Amino acid sequence: MLRGIDHVAIVVRDTERALRFWRDTMGLRVALTARAQAGTVQLTNLDLGDAHLQLVEPLTDDHPLLTWLGERETALHHLGLAVDDVSAYKDHAVASGLASEDTPIIPATMGRRAVFLDADAAHGVVIEIIAGRPREAGP
Amino acid sequence: MLRGIDHVAIVVRDTERALRFWRDTMGLRVALTARAQAGTVQLTNLDLGDAHLQLVEPLTDDHPLLTWLGERETALHHLGLAVDDVSAYKDHAVASGLASEDTPIIPATMGRRAVFLDADAAHGVVIEIIAGRPREAGP
Repeated sequence: MLRGIDHVAIVVRDTERALRFWRDTMGLRVALTARAQAGTVQLTNLDLGDAHLQLVEPLTDDHPLLTWLGERETALHHLGLAVDDVSAYKDHAVASGLASEDTPIIPATMGRRAVFLDADAAHGVVIEIIAGRPREAGP
Repeated sequence: MLRGIDHVAIVVRDTERALRFWRDTMGLRVALTARAQAGTVQLTNLDLGDAHLQLVEPLTDDHPLLTWLGERETALHHLGLAVDDVSAYKDHAVASGLASEDTPIIPATMGRRAVFLDADAAHGVVIEIIAGRPREAGP
């Protein structure tokens, strides 16, 4: 049911500093920017072949991702895996103990839908299951 | 010059426990297993669309990856990015300050060649630049 890697997300302390590396030095194109989590995080997606590299900058001083980041400037945070149908995958995940009935299906970038699996069940890695593929959203 | 994500690597304390999640629960197929770093790490690559998920298990009690892992059972460790030509990319990386002349080009899985960028220069994320794509190596 998993079609592949949709995105790899990196939490960054400062998007502009991160872009000086990923965009200016590594040459990746910015595909989209968006606010998420009720405006508390800034997302910047960069094109990486069939997938995106997603920079996630927490915007509030008490954001849990800042606690998670600790002293680091940046760190790999989660793996976005593509499926055709998030609702169907959630049913499968609930049956497999990777999510609960209460786990929300959330709006993601470009009008897509996503569900985060329970990280404890998912062997300690944060996994976002997301419908579609970034490149399909065009242009 | 970057063609996309070749693999995402996860350091794991125990490959068999990790496979119970990634293979048995998530349904990913094991594409290859290999020893690397003079036999001090066990690699297990799982198919993930056009890319691989790579489990990296340190095999020696004093392996630096165990120190890095700390108390965690597992953690996202590095991003493998595909290029056509590792030697050419290394020249570019040296010119960009992302590697030094002394940075070795190392043998990778399936007879491929790779170079790790300097993590400090690379904005804190460990990046492996690797030639070819996993799917091209055939079964």
